[in-house]
Amino acid sequence: MGGDLESVLEEVSSLLYEYMDELLPSGRSPSEARLAEAMRYSALAPGKRLRPFLTLETAKLFGVSKESALQAAAAIEFVHTYSLIHDDLPAMDDDDERRGQPSCHIKFDEATAILAGDALLTLAFEILADDSTHNSNAVKVELIRSVARASGHRGMVGGQMIDLRSDNKKLSINEIIHLQRLKTGELFAVSCDAGAILGNAPPNLRNMVKAYAHDIGLSFQITDDLLDAEAANDDDSERLHKSENKPTFITALGKRKAKEQAKILSEQAKDHLKVFGRKADLLQQLASYIVDRKF
Amino acid sequence: MGGDLESVLEEVSSLLYEYMDELLPSGRSPSEARLAEAMRYSALAPGKRLRPFLTLETAKLFGVSKESALQAAAAIEFVHTYSLIHDDLPAMDDDDERRGQPSCHIKFDEATAILAGDALLTLAFEILADDSTHNSNAVKVELIRSVARASGHRGMVGGQMIDLRSDNKKLSINEIIHLQRLKTGELFAVSCDAGAILGNAPPNLRNMVKAYAHDIGLSFQITDDLLDAEAANDDDSERLHKSENKPTFITALGKRKAKEQAKILSEQAKDHLKVFGRKADLLQQLASYIVDRKF
Repeated sequence: MGGDLESVLEEVSSLLYEYMDELLPSGRSPSEARLAEAMRYSALAPGKRLRPFLTLETAKLFGVSKESALQAAAAIEFVHTYSLIHDDLPAMDDDDERRGQPSCHIKFDEATAILAGDALLTLAFEILADDSTHNSNAVKVELIRSVARASGHRGMVGGQMIDLRSDNKKLSINEIIHLQRLKTGELFAVSCDAGAILGNAPPNLRNMVKAYAHDIGLSFQITDDLLDAEAANDDDSERLHKSENKPTFITALGKRKAKEQAKILSEQAKDHLKVFGRKADLLQQLASYIVDRKF
Repeated sequence: MGGDLESVLEEVSSLLYEYMDELLPSGRSPSEARLAEAMRYSALAPGKRLRPFLTLETAKLFGVSKESALQAAAAIEFVHTYSLIHDDLPAMDDDDERRGQPSCHIKFDEATAILAGDALLTLAFEILADDSTHNSNAVKVELIRSVARASGHRGMVGGQMIDLRSDNKKLSINEIIHLQRLKTGELFAVSCDAGAILGNAPPNLRNMVKAYAHDIGLSFQITDDLLDAEAANDDDSERLHKSENKPTFITALGKRKAKEQAKILSEQAKDHLKVFGRKADLLQQLASYIVDRKF
């Protein structure tokens, strides 16, 4: 691949679209149509596909086959999609829009959205356990265990719970870091770790890509908070909604310090990849892209 | 073990309670306490523990270690618990009570209930992928794949979706069988299959325990519908709520035929177990117990 990051991200998007399209249920029988339709609606909606990109790129560092990498990337994207569907529910963040279209419970209804999320999470584990994910069962088990840990009560779900409980609260910077590490950091980390696991990477290199992922995960979140704060000033209603009443890196650090911190983390992230040389060019570029993006 | 089924079911209940208690998060840190509390509240509530019983008993047929069987039994019970929590939500069946106590979203709130369900499902896969589940990774992978299939869009979640859409509809007997096979049958089947998988059972014996499970699953459901119908006559408000507007085996077959059918399935279930001789005594007893129960 090589070359321009944005065009590679687009390539990953269309590659993933096709691959997920195959993995998702077709819903041919009428009684199964609605659930399948909701799963497809949310999973195939246009997204940045950062997590699949991370899995595919780290997989390349360790000589992993394309099919293995795509299986893991799709499974992790399904976990991400399920979390968005459930987070958007009225009882949670109550968001009517997602990825530029009505969120799942608006397009369908709440019950369908809850079940579509449940089914996508379950499908992720079914995919990871599939023969085509890897020929070594030890690798598959390690991958499943890592994805489950990153997504569950000690990871993403735990982070979402803390996030919901922190409305209108003042959190310390350490508490915000902890929250974000669980809520988004662990899934970012396992997206990179998946490539390393599939490639039987030695522990020190596995730790390097995970350290990279944690740094870009945090710098991604700080940048998100900065973009939200700017949107609040510009009265951008879609972003505005999200930033009400939530403690953020901006409320804890102020804008200038937050910006500095995002840059420092991005540089630190790149540093972790030095050991891989030019092979990690695109991952290096992503670390800069994440803090420089305008969306 | 041998002996009286009811006392064995009680033993399984208390064994499972202790085992699940260990596997569930303690929620010691305050920010994680609420999620852990909700997971524990629902998973440790008194239940019949039929699925764990099935796993433990089939595991015995194939000489599986107690620890392996308990790991699988607990994981499947967590999947069952998550499905109850989500089914009870206002957007789904809207049930305020479960297992004789306020349902999870009443005791806590909707957001917490959604997340506790999500976390329990995820924890199930983490447990199945754990080293202590089995020393063969091939076995773990097969177990994870089977549990995922039974629980997802082609299994339990798919069944719940069809169930929700069938309110006020007239379903044929075949449609009701299909619905129930997905909604409860597949998880019953994988509860038995888990014991066979852990014991590396040959395919023909694996099929026997699965056939047994499908038969008792259906006869369990028919009996449930019969009990609901009786409760409706007796004006038992807790059961009454469930049976409104839903197509059931009673609406499709009538009471007398439904009762007959439940008995036939129970006998057929026992027949599948003949090959195991006296070792399957308790499973045989369960098949009768399921149609004779009064709760």
